[in-house]
Amino acid sequence: MSALSRRLAELGHTLPAVEPPVANFLTSLQGGELLLTAGQIGRVGAAKAGPVGAGLSVEATRDEAQQAALHLLAAIDAALDGASERIEHVLRLGVFIAAAPGFDAHSRVADGASDLLVAALGERGRHVRTAIGVASLPAGAAVEVDALLRLRPASESTRP
Amino acid sequence: MSALSRRLAELGHTLPAVEPPVANFLTSLQGGELLLTAGQIGRVGAAKAGPVGAGLSVEATRDEAQQAALHLLAAIDAALDGASERIEHVLRLGVFIAAAPGFDAHSRVADGASDLLVAALGERGRHVRTAIGVASLPAGAAVEVDALLRLRPASESTRP
Amino acid sequence: MSALSRRLAELGHTLPAVEPPVANFLTSLQGGELLLTAGQIGRVGAAKAGPVGAGLSVEATRDEAQQAALHLLAAIDAALDGASERIEHVLRLGVFIAAAPGFDAHSRVADGASDLLVAALGERGRHVRTAIGVASLPAGAAVEVDALLRLRPASESTRP
Repeated sequence: MSALSRRLAELGHTLPAVEPPVANFLTSLQGGELLLTAGQIGRVGAAKAGPVGAGLSVEATRDEAQQAALHLLAAIDAALDGASERIEHVLRLGVFIAAAPGFDAHSRVADGASDLLVAALGERGRHVRTAIGVASLPAGAAVEVDALLRLRPASESTRP
Repeated sequence: MSALSRRLAELGHTLPAVEPPVANFLTSLQGGELLLTAGQIGRVGAAKAGPVGAGLSVEATRDEAQQAALHLLAAIDAALDGASERIEHVLRLGVFIAAAPGFDAHSRVADGASDLLVAALGERGRHVRTAIGVASLPAGAAVEVDALLRLRPASESTRP
Repeated sequence: MSALSRRLAELGHTLPAVEPPVANFLTSLQGGELLLTAGQIGRVGAAKAGPVGAGLSVEATRDEAQQAALHLLAAIDAALDGASERIEHVLRLGVFIAAAPGFDAHSRVADGASDLLVAALGERGRHVRTAIGVASLPAGAAVEVDALLRLRPASESTRP
């Protein structure tokens, strides 16, 4: 069990399994000191009855943002082979919310993802963020998130 | 008054105050030589009467893009503690426009932001850009922009 | 004829000419070891009869993603002056699809772009990806893509 898994268990969450991508892309990729993730969605079909502002409630959509962030953390943990101490900082979070025209509470929804990152990683999890309301998302998801992280040089990290 | 404030004053603009984020994210963050900003919006509620293409005019939306860019520059100036000479280049601008389906003049709107960056920072302000039309934006804004910049190493910069 | 042009010709594609940006932005920009591109669209007006999910078919939209990726590769080839061997890796692809609310096959559409990058660049072309459905795109396009690449240091590249 990785350090991140343990921390999430303390928070009452279970790190989901990382499923192979459904299409021709990678789940994560390291380039120099940067680690990038593919967009990670919440539950399949969550926006089927209508997006937030025209169906799904703000609270349910916020929970979808948290689910998407759990998948994001799982992707990061897998990319680092459990060595999450190598994370220097989560730099940026993109939050894409299936939302009706006129919806305006994107920040409350997006905090469902941001709060989890900060709870899981502490100060290193605090990030800049861009949240927008989109027309639709892959697999009928209600929320999709992606991340850009900065890693410590491998020599600096202290693996247990 | 910072160099950037003075330059904007010459252009007839006032650098707005940087307000604390309304949610759990940072306004800007430096990682290595990269400086990233959170998404910065124009005026709250600007798209209330309908997004561009179904309410707001192209000119008014372009002005919102400029407003968002003013907030972006304020965030950058604050991140650098006024030392804008440390900016090597604005690398990328993301421009998110609340827009009706079928709207196609995103480039004219986005130039409201890009023109200001280039006027304020000269050649260093010229950037790649991705402009898209979205369903809705935080706080009912009409335009949101974010940026990725590259900084000069601190030792190379010549602070006055 | 560049190496990338030749490879695309083998795949039955012609690298399009890089047209100057229609607005105040750069087509590509290098910052350190990163190469960034502006958003590149498929055919002008492709979504005129309605976006995917409310007009354009999935197959036609997937073809638009491929067209957008051809423009992306042309921008990259021009940025490197034909020295595509300097590409260490395509790190990330953003795929923006003009899509109706309720559309859910973004991954199939986006593979039109990803498949081309991988066919053209092999393992170096494999990337993380964020695909979202948007309200509208510049010039009435059906798909827009942008990319972040990591380059080899100039001294390491072996130009023919």
